[in-house]
Amino acid sequence: MCNRAEMSMEGYYTFGPHKIDAKDVFYTTQLSFAMVNLRPALPGHVLIIPKREVKRVADLTAEETCDLWLTAQKDGPEAGQTVPHVHIHILPRKIGDFERNDDIYEAIDEKEKELKRKLDIEKERKDRSSEERIQEANAYRPLFL
Amino acid sequence: MCNRAEMSMEGYYTFGPHKIDAKDVFYTTQLSFAMVNLRPALPGHVLIIPKREVKRVADLTAEETCDLWLTAQKDGPEAGQTVPHVHIHILPRKIGDFERNDDIYEAIDEKEKELKRKLDIEKERKDRSSEERIQEANAYRPLFL
Repeated sequence: MCNRAEMSMEGYYTFGPHKIDAKDVFYTTQLSFAMVNLRPALPGHVLIIPKREVKRVADLTAEETCDLWLTAQKDGPEAGQTVPHVHIHILPRKIGDFERNDDIYEAIDEKEKELKRKLDIEKERKDRSSEERIQEANAYRPLFL
Repeated sequence: MCNRAEMSMEGYYTFGPHKIDAKDVFYTTQLSFAMVNLRPALPGHVLIIPKREVKRVADLTAEETCDLWLTAQKDGPEAGQTVPHVHIHILPRKIGDFERNDDIYEAIDEKEKELKRKLDIEKERKDRSSEERIQEANAYRPLFL
């Protein structure tokens, strides 16, 4: 609560250490703002940012998380999904886990296609693989109690 | 509301056209579930999915969006960010906009680094670029009224 940066007196929003001119901001909510990009990767490439300077997703309050994603949802279609059911990939990353950091996206894509093929021939699922997955799910479950 | 798929009588969750065994699910909330992966791209690669079979992010209710991201937040650090302030990239994608679909991530990464460099030398910002951005922000603003 101590660091909730609304637009400053000088007409700036805060994005990390940077000042963002209010003229670059096209939408605000109580806790988030949406800005156009100095260097868009594609036309229409914009950013949604919590007003408070929060370093990591885990540090967002529940209200900020909801506000941020509801703002993003207002703005965004989603592309390239393999299974036609909304889903979020969570991946624990480590430095050097892929030769090029962004190769993970290709790996996810390939794994999604594999998953789809695998689920499509679900009947022949091997017991071993099922065992492994159950073991993993069992290991995670107590962490959420 | 008509399609809110809780775990079925047979002990399955729904992921698109696929049935997911409850044994693979390690966390559930009122509207979401978290499952281990048949084919993880990395150890610990899991999926967070709305219980209702929703095709696109835009079709999620506000409650589902909040529930889904609060569930993901419980589970997830985030890696590879350039500016130490949480932000979401929104990009309108088109078929064929990049030779390889996932090259967009590298492009975003490069643009983030450029943005950081650009903001770091903000004093010499060119008027033309500022004009362009203001024009873009002005064009988006009325869409949110």
